[in-house]
Amino acid sequence: QVSQWVRNQAYPQGSVGRFMDPVYAVFPPRLTVGETIERLRELIKQAFITYGFIVDEAGRLRGVITMRDLLFAEHERTLEAVMIASPFSLDARMPLAEAMKAVLSRHYPVYPVCDGDGRLVGLVRGQVLFEEQNFEISAQPASMVGVEEERLTTPWQRCLKLRHPWLQFNLLTAFLAAAVVGVFQETLNQLVILALFLPVLAGQSGNTGCQALAVTLRGLTLGEVRPGRERALVAKEAWLGLLNGLLVGLVSAVGMYVTAASQHNPAAPWLALAILLAMVGSCVVSGISGAMIPLTLKRLGADPATASSIFLTTATDVASMGLFLGLATVLILW
Amino acid sequence: QVSQWVRNQAYPQGSVGRFMDPVYAVFPPRLTVGETIERLRELIKQAFITYGFIVDEAGRLRGVITMRDLLFAEHERTLEAVMIASPFSLDARMPLAEAMKAVLSRHYPVYPVCDGDGRLVGLVRGQVLFEEQNFEISAQPASMVGVEEERLTTPWQRCLKLRHPWLQFNLLTAFLAAAVVGVFQETLNQLVILALFLPVLAGQSGNTGCQALAVTLRGLTLGEVRPGRERALVAKEAWLGLLNGLLVGLVSAVGMYVTAASQHNPAAPWLALAILLAMVGSCVVSGISGAMIPLTLKRLGADPATASSIFLTTATDVASMGLFLGLATVLILW
Repeated sequence: QVSQWVRNQAYPQGSVGRFMDPVYAVFPPRLTVGETIERLRELIKQAFITYGFIVDEAGRLRGVITMRDLLFAEHERTLEAVMIASPFSLDARMPLAEAMKAVLSRHYPVYPVCDGDGRLVGLVRGQVLFEEQNFEISAQPASMVGVEEERLTTPWQRCLKLRHPWLQFNLLTAFLAAAVVGVFQETLNQLVILALFLPVLAGQSGNTGCQALAVTLRGLTLGEVRPGRERALVAKEAWLGLLNGLLVGLVSAVGMYVTAASQHNPAAPWLALAILLAMVGSCVVSGISGAMIPLTLKRLGADPATASSIFLTTATDVASMGLFLGLATVLILW
Repeated sequence: QVSQWVRNQAYPQGSVGRFMDPVYAVFPPRLTVGETIERLRELIKQAFITYGFIVDEAGRLRGVITMRDLLFAEHERTLEAVMIASPFSLDARMPLAEAMKAVLSRHYPVYPVCDGDGRLVGLVRGQVLFEEQNFEISAQPASMVGVEEERLTTPWQRCLKLRHPWLQFNLLTAFLAAAVVGVFQETLNQLVILALFLPVLAGQSGNTGCQALAVTLRGLTLGEVRPGRERALVAKEAWLGLLNGLLVGLVSAVGMYVTAASQHNPAAPWLALAILLAMVGSCVVSGISGAMIPLTLKRLGADPATASSIFLTTATDVASMGLFLGLATVLILW
């Protein structure tokens, strides 16, 4: 137990090697089934044993034997002859997240873990991997807003420290959007009604982008994004953005027209047209961004969930409000 | 196989009963270990068998026997004497989500499933439960934006149908926020600079709320919210909202002051004060809403992830922009 702990410490944090339990049931290939049973009879008194592992003189994993095989094989046969040869094993240096994907379709109670030379160095329980996986997957929405390390029991001082930098960083990007609005301050001065619809536009294109982002992230989590399919995925999101933007834009245009007309604004039809076009354009940008940002982050080796939403919000805010105010300026004030 | 399928159909959609495999290794309690091994020798040729199940004359599950126990028990003993009595089992009528929670700490390869009278009616593989669980947990961010049913391969027509209602519903709530801004149109008319900071304020309080929401939802998913602790949780989020709002509000106030002063606006200090106070107030509201909305939905029996973000956005938009414009009106124009 102690020596296993020492061995585990040699592996990097977050790797499979850190989570290994010691292996007790290790047997040479030439041992007979009968001899193995006799050895196991003693071993099971000391440890909970699920499988027997067969290793050669160099310590390399050669096979696995189940209790079922031992029960029904003839006692004179050698392990070599009845074992499951070249069994599935994990590499101790593998990050836990990768190991989880590797075992997803297996669901064994324990997995043998080997070093780079194929030597059996420990066991890892399936439960350990799956607990980590639940924890990881459930962290995704949290990581999108910078709080993946936080639990309910985290003291508030630490919460503040974890959450606050993310908010300040977002503020920076919000100032960017404000600056875009600022460019059109003269337009707003003449058409205050535009201000009412700025949050509507930013909100809707943000939502369209979030839908694309959520679907893409989930596809990445479940390993469904096949190489070469990225372009089709982005095209689909652009198309959906166009259609959703068109439908939502029409309703917004009606809302804008009614509001402007009730204020006796002679530019009411043009205002309605501006919001319709801006909604379509910004929803297309949002859809494309929602799919492309996580795919790009993933390709760059970053965690696609963590930073996606900041980039997405910036893109949707700047695109939607800039487009809207720009169109209104061109259509009405020029 | 066919009769098992018929039996499964009798259970409600999404219940454990729908996912059952047939049980082959069923034995009476008085059978000896030796007799059991002989029976199993034939059974393992037909099916993959992990455990033996011991049922009484009425078909009720009495115990489980592992291959390891059979291997090392004396052949004359009865199963009754060596089995694991009153083993863990799932109820066939249980929803899958509940079953997943029940097996979270067990991680057996298969689980016996019983009907309401404790009769063994099938087996369910752990893998099936865990696949469903990954799928469910990974659906959470998607369900927050109304796309939990969608996969990467879903055709675009269906995507549009799934996503669009959510966007239209959000538009309705965005109009509510726009109406709140509309109340202060005269204020905006006199102080166009306020329009620049509306998206900043809505964005920041939205983010504060999303952080609280993500942490609370994760706590609910991992089963960490203990009854009676809800009030403390909401209080903590209110406190964090206050602190985050204060710090973000100070930076925003500086931004507002610099912008207003550069435009020679004599109300610059008051504008800065208005955004500071509005930021603090709306971040407190957002923090409280982010924690309370999912807890309330959960208590009402609804899925806390699905609708939370719509309610949250509405609350943060109305609170942040209403507070900001109201404060500006009171502080500067009165």
